[in-house]
Amino acid sequence: MPGLASAGDDTTALAVRALKAARGQFVSGEELGRALGLSRNAIWKQMETLRQLGYQVQSIRGLGHRLVDVPDVPLPWEVMDGLATRRIGRPVWYMDTTTSTQDVARHWGQVGAAEGALVVATEQTSGRGRMRRPYFTPRGGLWFSLVLRPARPPLDILALSLAASLAVQEGIRAASGLTAVLKWPNDVLLGERKVAGVMVEFDGDQDRLHQAVLGVGINVNLDADAFPAELRDRATSLKLELGRPLPLVPTLRCVLEALDRHYERFLEGGSEAVCLAWRLAPNMLGREVRVISPPDTWEGTAVELDRDCALLVRLASGDLRRVAAGDIELLPGVERLAPRA
Amino acid sequence: MPGLASAGDDTTALAVRALKAARGQFVSGEELGRALGLSRNAIWKQMETLRQLGYQVQSIRGLGHRLVDVPDVPLPWEVMDGLATRRIGRPVWYMDTTTSTQDVARHWGQVGAAEGALVVATEQTSGRGRMRRPYFTPRGGLWFSLVLRPARPPLDILALSLAASLAVQEGIRAASGLTAVLKWPNDVLLGERKVAGVMVEFDGDQDRLHQAVLGVGINVNLDADAFPAELRDRATSLKLELGRPLPLVPTLRCVLEALDRHYERFLEGGSEAVCLAWRLAPNMLGREVRVISPPDTWEGTAVELDRDCALLVRLASGDLRRVAAGDIELLPGVERLAPRA
Repeated sequence: MPGLASAGDDTTALAVRALKAARGQFVSGEELGRALGLSRNAIWKQMETLRQLGYQVQSIRGLGHRLVDVPDVPLPWEVMDGLATRRIGRPVWYMDTTTSTQDVARHWGQVGAAEGALVVATEQTSGRGRMRRPYFTPRGGLWFSLVLRPARPPLDILALSLAASLAVQEGIRAASGLTAVLKWPNDVLLGERKVAGVMVEFDGDQDRLHQAVLGVGINVNLDADAFPAELRDRATSLKLELGRPLPLVPTLRCVLEALDRHYERFLEGGSEAVCLAWRLAPNMLGREVRVISPPDTWEGTAVELDRDCALLVRLASGDLRRVAAGDIELLPGVERLAPRA
Repeated sequence: MPGLASAGDDTTALAVRALKAARGQFVSGEELGRALGLSRNAIWKQMETLRQLGYQVQSIRGLGHRLVDVPDVPLPWEVMDGLATRRIGRPVWYMDTTTSTQDVARHWGQVGAAEGALVVATEQTSGRGRMRRPYFTPRGGLWFSLVLRPARPPLDILALSLAASLAVQEGIRAASGLTAVLKWPNDVLLGERKVAGVMVEFDGDQDRLHQAVLGVGINVNLDADAFPAELRDRATSLKLELGRPLPLVPTLRCVLEALDRHYERFLEGGSEAVCLAWRLAPNMLGREVRVISPPDTWEGTAVELDRDCALLVRLASGDLRRVAAGDIELLPGVERLAPRA
C-alpha cells in the first residue's frame, strides 16, 4: 500500500517533475536518464507509461521528450504539485475505480496511514453517504476520503463534519466563484440543489476520537442526464451551475487547502470555533424546515446552531427544539438563498 | 464462539439446572441421563466436569448425584440463572483469564454478537481503562464488557458512559448496601476512593453510533495488599469497605439488572434523561476540583452537568467553564460526601 500511495520516490512522479521543469521544452533522454536513474531505453518505456496515464508527451529521437499536456486526473503527484497544506493530502492514493474510498481509507488508517492521507477515486462502485445510504458517484465528480486522528472529545464529532462542509463550500468558491449554501448537517447546495456532501465515520472512546475517516463527494462535471431520474430535481453539479466544466485536480486542491485550514481550526477550537464559522457562512438558518427523525416528522424554523453544532428549530408554539441528528428538508421559502450563477 | 458463549443448549448448563431443580436432593443417574440425553456412564463424566468447574457434587452409586455447593464464578448459566434483564447479559461468555474483555467483546460484536452480549473474566492480563491507560484487574474483582448497538447520535456518547456509572452505583447499592458517589466522568467512589470504573469504546458516523463496547471494572473482593502501592491511597474494594467479602455472581447480576434499566432509559431519552438521573444520584457536584486537560490544569467548583453530560465548573472569577473530556481530581473538601460504611 505505501508504494501505491506515496508519490515522493516514484519513478513516474520523478519523470513528470523533470518534464514539467522544462516548461514545454524538450529534455534529452540522457538528462532524463540521469534524473531518474534509468537507461535511455527505460526512459522510452517510461514515456509510454506516462502516455497510458493520459499525459501527452512528444518524443523525437535526437531531441528527447517534451510534455505537451497533463491529464486532469487526481494522480498523487498532480494533486500534491503545489498543494499548500500542512496535513491534508499527504500522501495521496489514487484509484481509477474502487468500491468506496471510505473503506480503503479506513483500512489504510488502521494499518498506519499518516494523518491527512487521502484516498481519491475517479469512480466508486459502492459509494455510500450518511447512514450507509447509497451515494451516486460516477465519473466526472470528486470522490475522496481522508484519514484523520483528531485528538478531540467525541462530543466534537458533529463539528468535524460541519467543518468539512464549510471547507467544501470554501473550496467550491475558490475553484468556481460559486457561493454554495450549507444545509445542516452535511449538504452543500447550489440553487437549492445538492452539489456536495460530507460524511464522517469514526471510532474512539468517551474521552477521545481515535480515527475519523472523512468522506467528501462533489458533483463537479456531472451532466443533468448523468443523474438518476429521482435525483434530478434535488442534485446539481458545478458544471451545470457554471455552464462549463471545471478541471478536477485544481478543484480538489482548492478543497484540500480549505480542509487543511478548517481542520486546523477544529483541532484548536472544537465545536465552538466551528459553530462560529458556520453561522457566518452562507447557510440555511432562517429557513422553514421539516425535520425527519423517525418516528417523528415535524416542522419549524431553523434559527440557530448551538455550541455543539446541533441545530435549534423554533416550533410554531415558539418553543425551541434541538436536533442533534436527523434529516432536514428545506421547505419552499420566500426566496432562493443563493443566486444561481 | 457462539458455542462458548451461549448457555442454553450446553450440556453442562443442563446438568446444573437438573441438579439445582432437585434442591439438594439426590437425582438418579437414570433421570439425569434422560434430561441430558446421555448414558449413565457419560453422566458420571459430566459430574466430574462439574467438579472441575468448582461445583461440589456428591455422587453415590444407587442414590445418584446431589448438588452440595455452587462455585462463585460467573459461568454463563450461573450469571443467567434468575437474571432479570431484557437485553443485558444475553448471552454470556466467561473466561478465567483473558487479555482484555474489551478486545474480546469488540471482536465478538463485529462478528455479530447480539446486543447485550456479555464477556466476563476472572482476571485480565492487559486490562485497560480510559485513554488506553493500564487498569489493574486481578482475581477477586468483576471485569466485564458488553456489546451494545445504541441507535443514538454520537453526541450521546458521554451520556452512555454516565448511564453505565449510574448503573454500577445502583448495582453496588443493591448488592452491598453501600452508597457510592459518582465522580465525573466515569469513576465510582467509596469514601473518596475508586471502587469501580467504566469506559466506552465505540464506532459510528455523524448520525449514529454503530457499536459501543462498554467496559466495567468493580473491585469487589480485593484486599488492601492486592493493590499496587501507588493505588492504595486512591483505590478501595467493596470487601474493604464492607469488612466482608461479597459473592461475585449475585453482585454481577445486580449490576447487570441496573445496567439494563439505565440502558433502556438512555435509549429512550438520551443525554437529557441520563443527565437528570445523574444529578439526582449521589455525586461530586459541589466539590472543589482540579481539572487536568493537557496542556492546562485549573481549579474550580463542579456545579452542574449540562444536557450533553459535560461538566460545568465555576472558576474563582465566577465564570463557568465546560469540561467535555478530561481528568478531574477532587480537592480535599469540607466533609466526605458519602458516609463510610
